[in-house]
Amino acid sequence: MIDFSLTSEQKVLRERVREFIVERILPLERDPRQGPHGPQDDFRRELNALAESAGLLAPHVGAEWGGLGLDHVSCAIVFEAAGYSPIGPIAMNCSAPDEGNMHMLELIATEQQKDRFLRPLAKGETRSCFAMTEPAPGAGADPNLLLTEARRDGDGYVVNGVKWLITGAQGAAFAIIMARTEEGATMLLSDMSAPGIRIERILDTIDQGFAGGHAVLRFENLRIPAQNVLGAPGQGFKYAQVRLAPARLTHCMRWLGAAGRAHDIARRYAATRQAFGKTLGEHEGVGFMLADNELDMHQCRLAIWHCAWLLDQGQSAGSASSMAKVICSEGLYRVADRCVQILGGMGVTQDTLVERIFREIRAFRIYDGPSETHRWALARRALRSVGDLPPGI
Amino acid sequence: MIDFSLTSEQKVLRERVREFIVERILPLERDPRQGPHGPQDDFRRELNALAESAGLLAPHVGAEWGGLGLDHVSCAIVFEAAGYSPIGPIAMNCSAPDEGNMHMLELIATEQQKDRFLRPLAKGETRSCFAMTEPAPGAGADPNLLLTEARRDGDGYVVNGVKWLITGAQGAAFAIIMARTEEGATMLLSDMSAPGIRIERILDTIDQGFAGGHAVLRFENLRIPAQNVLGAPGQGFKYAQVRLAPARLTHCMRWLGAAGRAHDIARRYAATRQAFGKTLGEHEGVGFMLADNELDMHQCRLAIWHCAWLLDQGQSAGSASSMAKVICSEGLYRVADRCVQILGGMGVTQDTLVERIFREIRAFRIYDGPSETHRWALARRALRSVGDLPPGI
Amino acid sequence: MIDFSLTSEQKVLRERVREFIVERILPLERDPRQGPHGPQDDFRRELNALAESAGLLAPHVGAEWGGLGLDHVSCAIVFEAAGYSPIGPIAMNCSAPDEGNMHMLELIATEQQKDRFLRPLAKGETRSCFAMTEPAPGAGADPNLLLTEARRDGDGYVVNGVKWLITGAQGAAFAIIMARTEEGATMLLSDMSAPGIRIERILDTIDQGFAGGHAVLRFENLRIPAQNVLGAPGQGFKYAQVRLAPARLTHCMRWLGAAGRAHDIARRYAATRQAFGKTLGEHEGVGFMLADNELDMHQCRLAIWHCAWLLDQGQSAGSASSMAKVICSEGLYRVADRCVQILGGMGVTQDTLVERIFREIRAFRIYDGPSETHRWALARRALRSVGDLPPGI
Amino acid sequence: MIDFSLTSEQKVLRERVREFIVERILPLERDPRQGPHGPQDDFRRELNALAESAGLLAPHVGAEWGGLGLDHVSCAIVFEAAGYSPIGPIAMNCSAPDEGNMHMLELIATEQQKDRFLRPLAKGETRSCFAMTEPAPGAGADPNLLLTEARRDGDGYVVNGVKWLITGAQGAAFAIIMARTEEGATMLLSDMSAPGIRIERILDTIDQGFAGGHAVLRFENLRIPAQNVLGAPGQGFKYAQVRLAPARLTHCMRWLGAAGRAHDIARRYAATRQAFGKTLGEHEGVGFMLADNELDMHQCRLAIWHCAWLLDQGQSAGSASSMAKVICSEGLYRVADRCVQILGGMGVTQDTLVERIFREIRAFRIYDGPSETHRWALARRALRSVGDLPPGI
Repeated sequence: MIDFSLTSEQKVLRERVREFIVERILPLERDPRQGPHGPQDDFRRELNALAESAGLLAPHVGAEWGGLGLDHVSCAIVFEAAGYSPIGPIAMNCSAPDEGNMHMLELIATEQQKDRFLRPLAKGETRSCFAMTEPAPGAGADPNLLLTEARRDGDGYVVNGVKWLITGAQGAAFAIIMARTEEGATMLLSDMSAPGIRIERILDTIDQGFAGGHAVLRFENLRIPAQNVLGAPGQGFKYAQVRLAPARLTHCMRWLGAAGRAHDIARRYAATRQAFGKTLGEHEGVGFMLADNELDMHQCRLAIWHCAWLLDQGQSAGSASSMAKVICSEGLYRVADRCVQILGGMGVTQDTLVERIFREIRAFRIYDGPSETHRWALARRALRSVGDLPPGI
Repeated sequence: MIDFSLTSEQKVLRERVREFIVERILPLERDPRQGPHGPQDDFRRELNALAESAGLLAPHVGAEWGGLGLDHVSCAIVFEAAGYSPIGPIAMNCSAPDEGNMHMLELIATEQQKDRFLRPLAKGETRSCFAMTEPAPGAGADPNLLLTEARRDGDGYVVNGVKWLITGAQGAAFAIIMARTEEGATMLLSDMSAPGIRIERILDTIDQGFAGGHAVLRFENLRIPAQNVLGAPGQGFKYAQVRLAPARLTHCMRWLGAAGRAHDIARRYAATRQAFGKTLGEHEGVGFMLADNELDMHQCRLAIWHCAWLLDQGQSAGSASSMAKVICSEGLYRVADRCVQILGGMGVTQDTLVERIFREIRAFRIYDGPSETHRWALARRALRSVGDLPPGI
Repeated sequence: MIDFSLTSEQKVLRERVREFIVERILPLERDPRQGPHGPQDDFRRELNALAESAGLLAPHVGAEWGGLGLDHVSCAIVFEAAGYSPIGPIAMNCSAPDEGNMHMLELIATEQQKDRFLRPLAKGETRSCFAMTEPAPGAGADPNLLLTEARRDGDGYVVNGVKWLITGAQGAAFAIIMARTEEGATMLLSDMSAPGIRIERILDTIDQGFAGGHAVLRFENLRIPAQNVLGAPGQGFKYAQVRLAPARLTHCMRWLGAAGRAHDIARRYAATRQAFGKTLGEHEGVGFMLADNELDMHQCRLAIWHCAWLLDQGQSAGSASSMAKVICSEGLYRVADRCVQILGGMGVTQDTLVERIFREIRAFRIYDGPSETHRWALARRALRSVGDLPPGI
Repeated sequence: MIDFSLTSEQKVLRERVREFIVERILPLERDPRQGPHGPQDDFRRELNALAESAGLLAPHVGAEWGGLGLDHVSCAIVFEAAGYSPIGPIAMNCSAPDEGNMHMLELIATEQQKDRFLRPLAKGETRSCFAMTEPAPGAGADPNLLLTEARRDGDGYVVNGVKWLITGAQGAAFAIIMARTEEGATMLLSDMSAPGIRIERILDTIDQGFAGGHAVLRFENLRIPAQNVLGAPGQGFKYAQVRLAPARLTHCMRWLGAAGRAHDIARRYAATRQAFGKTLGEHEGVGFMLADNELDMHQCRLAIWHCAWLLDQGQSAGSASSMAKVICSEGLYRVADRCVQILGGMGVTQDTLVERIFREIRAFRIYDGPSETHRWALARRALRSVGDLPPGI
């Protein structure tokens, strides 16, 4: 039965997260231990400690691993509140790529793998990365171009290939690697300290929020034992979907919070800054931008809740997840762009957080599949089912 | 608790309406008893009879008046299905302005007024109109410019003024008239056959779906007895909001159905029409338009459901209603516009229903408040509450 | 040398046309001899007579045929001024499809053909049509799907096929027919009174400005003598480009004038109509729409002038013509749409000319190639020349 | 007479600049002597030396000062070619704010002032800044909020106030300061080494291309002798317009070149990168983005040429300059944004110049007046002249 109310647990939790973010995290946002490639590890651990003492660490993983075991809808509410600060999700250990990796490990990994990889990750003792994207001519928007090979060798695999834009690789304890085996695309777990892994360089990027930044990784005869295959060999692309549908959505949740922050900054600015005889906000040109922000965020939130609910039902959410990704990455970007514009000169400086949020969300329009890929998936689906439609034009 | 599932009653009802529309109504869409100012009355009555025998007449009014007593969320589901045909809502007696008038009468009218005005209206025996909008310099987007006067005279009122764009006035049995009394804006009920009412002319408009079209009305010393005041004198604008928040939303529901029809026509066309070596739909340029249609309709549906749910909770839905109006009128218009474009030359002819749906939804962007009015309301609200926001920029 | 000044002849001529339109044509715009399929022939002839006595008939054709022999740039200036009234171009005998047909005949026809077909057409004694587009699965946006056949038979051809959306066919004295011969696509001239031509029906369309409306034509063993081949057999598509590049552009010129009219109506309305304590135009939400209109029309005018200048240089203008079509059809449509919105309720009624201009320009987005076709042509061109670009990313 | 051809001098010069940029400047784009606040001074001087030996230094100033004395139209051609590299305009000493300052000094300064300030600036021996914008609540988009005061004191002035976003202040030899005197807003020239000037800090901003970055300046009892008043006291805002109309336009010229570079990178990438069985560019979704780039750049170029031509005629170009600023800042930004999107993951990294161009042009949407200010100026103008319009609706 259609219902948009939060449970009282959700309301309480949302309030706790809001309070935590505003009181504990916002004062730390200008901490100098942040650079173009994310927060330093000591800063991250301090943030994690704050979240842990607030009982808000890794809320998406099961209690068994130290989390709150939230379902997707509750995550939607909590992650939006966490995202109100760009360092909120890092503090609460629910940022990408770790959050998606935890989710996938919880679903697919063996008990042994969970114990070794998931447990310390959930506690914030380690970080992880997901090594799928490759430089041209390898796997980008089109995963079928996958070039990295995992050749069977004795009771294990030998992996060779290059990955790039691998978020968080620098400083990660382990990687989930997508490689081509004779069974097809396969996911494998490897310690990052293994001799065959080399971080070639850290990319300079428009965003700066991910711990460790984005790296180029090279695998040279990297040996991975057979027990480190994640799930069944050849099922890599299927698992990637298992990871991606919710991972895309949690991106949406966090960035909705960030856009809300930018909007709050912009509307407070608009309510006070004078120009041409009244406040900026009393100018309809600015007021309409604020209204459009509200409209965009409202639609993003509803699309997120809907997709999260589908995931909680165990329903296939491929199409809803594609829709949420397009709606949110484009809608929240418009919000951030308007906030820059409202702030005027201030908006293009790092004196305001809005500038950073703008850059982060620009990158989000690319990550986890650009809009173009999702639009094409939606188009094919719209074209498939026309046989059942009533006749007539 | 957030939930997007339909109840089994809603599912059954939706299926019944879909079946009714596709099997009984679609075959009648080209009936020649339709013109630029809507269906002729005999055709409308035939359609009503079909809906009545299907048990689908006036589903939004209480069983006491012959309806199904649906709440707003159920209306959202039923009206979307009804709107799949432009004559579906007329058949089911849930089109504007009658539907909104029934809703308001049910809430505000005295028992005597209900018996006299609501009962035959709900049965489709009569039609009604809502006489609020005035030509310049009177009340348009800004209701405060109201010029029509109802002067107290003995135990009744004498009304003078001009109204325009009064939907359905031609052929209506009664009107709900907004006029200025000494207490303020007041609603009054009057038979359209009263001597002081003259229909000056029927306007030619871009749309053609409303029974009776849109008229210019003149009140010349129209006498209205005191018992025909609707609700309390001076409360006219408040009641208008009571009427408008849901009335705007039911517009959205019906046009969502119509946009879905246009989309279905367009995607079937795209799936079959060849150009440049493949079907139109296999061209990404067209496929992306179909994807954008799906994205827009998804967002409209969610915004409608959310606002309907708020109304069902008895919560103030002013802001949600404004948002739904902007989202739907603009989003559904984009859908209709893309469908015209996909159909190419066909799309600008009346060989396809899409052309008509496009024109109807263009008008919808004006009715019940243009986007600009709603954006300004949203802006003011965004600016009001900045005192509570966390500090910092 | 880059120059945006008009010659004194152009200035004088523009002034004459403006005066003619405002003083002689505007007062006739509500003449009842206009319907959904354009002006009646007697009205058209009266309008032509006015233009002739003003020395403004068929300004684009050579003095030999009674025109002013204007080049494309001068046409840009004159046609924009003519288009200020929807019946201006009809009055001046420079509306589609006759204007494009005259242009092509002047370039390609034999002297005998010119004498027979062009001379009376230029004088407004006859009208013409251009029979190229076919219903699905025939030639639409993709001309290669051409199905109409002209079979060689003795010293002539026998034509069979169906055409649709043939503007002006009803009432035309002759048609230029695109048909497939053994040499390829070929243009043929035929009297419309020939026994093998049947007008099946006139389509009801969203626009209403073209004399004769848009028809479905059927050719059943239509005999056409060999001397009525226009140009060389097999060169039909090449000639269509000869016709289309400028014909598309003259559409742009005329609709720029019409958009300017809508804008003038809207800004006068905005300057006087009150809402919420000031004029509409003093609301930035409305003022910005006016500004965007100015921006769009400025860009359209520049793109038209540029393309017209290229055509006057005898340069290939394929790409510039595609750009002008996309820029103008989309830009002028936005102008018309904003004007409807500014006028509010008035804007969706036929009390204002804006409503009609809006519908006409919606159709223009389809005619002479939808934006999608032109965008694809531009894309291929952008991709072709990448070999010469400097290296680096 | 309308003409879009370049003179042969312009063609030769354009070719020389193109060659200079591609052969001499492109190889230096990755020089490490560039940071978040622009190129280091030694790097800048090396670049200037290259331009000087190519005879391309300061092409906009008169031969008397070492330049080429180009008119605005020729600047449009040359600056676009220079802007193809983000460091091209710096190399050719025609970047902001120096270029606009030279222009204004040439027009307004006394001979003595020119000799002292303009001469070394034109040669690239010095840099300059333009100190107008102030932090809230001072002069931003609304110049009338000007707070900086220049109090008359003996034969000079004593200036107090704060400025911010002052481009190039760090490293500049002198500043043009806008301050309030008893005569009104006044421009004054001051050495940056004067004791009363303090650079409080360099702002971190989204862009990085301007030499010296953007600074916060504080004037504390800064003494300026009377002979350093630029032009007449009280005429500061008038002169600012003298500076701004062309300065805005030269921004447009340079960024048009930069957008062209991004487009070239994107289309070469699209022509080679494979996805889903063909090159990216063969996907219409990408191809249409390239087409839209061509459309946007075409319109920007025409608007620039038109405004430059007006300036060359000595005509008031306020409205054309506002239009060019809005058209270019928004259109070129769309181009840059699409290029990021086409490059996918690559597009958000600094491995490609596109990422930087995107950030630079985002800032350009704010500099020299945001679109909102210009739209409002255009709106007022559209509303002013309605008295002359023909009647009717």
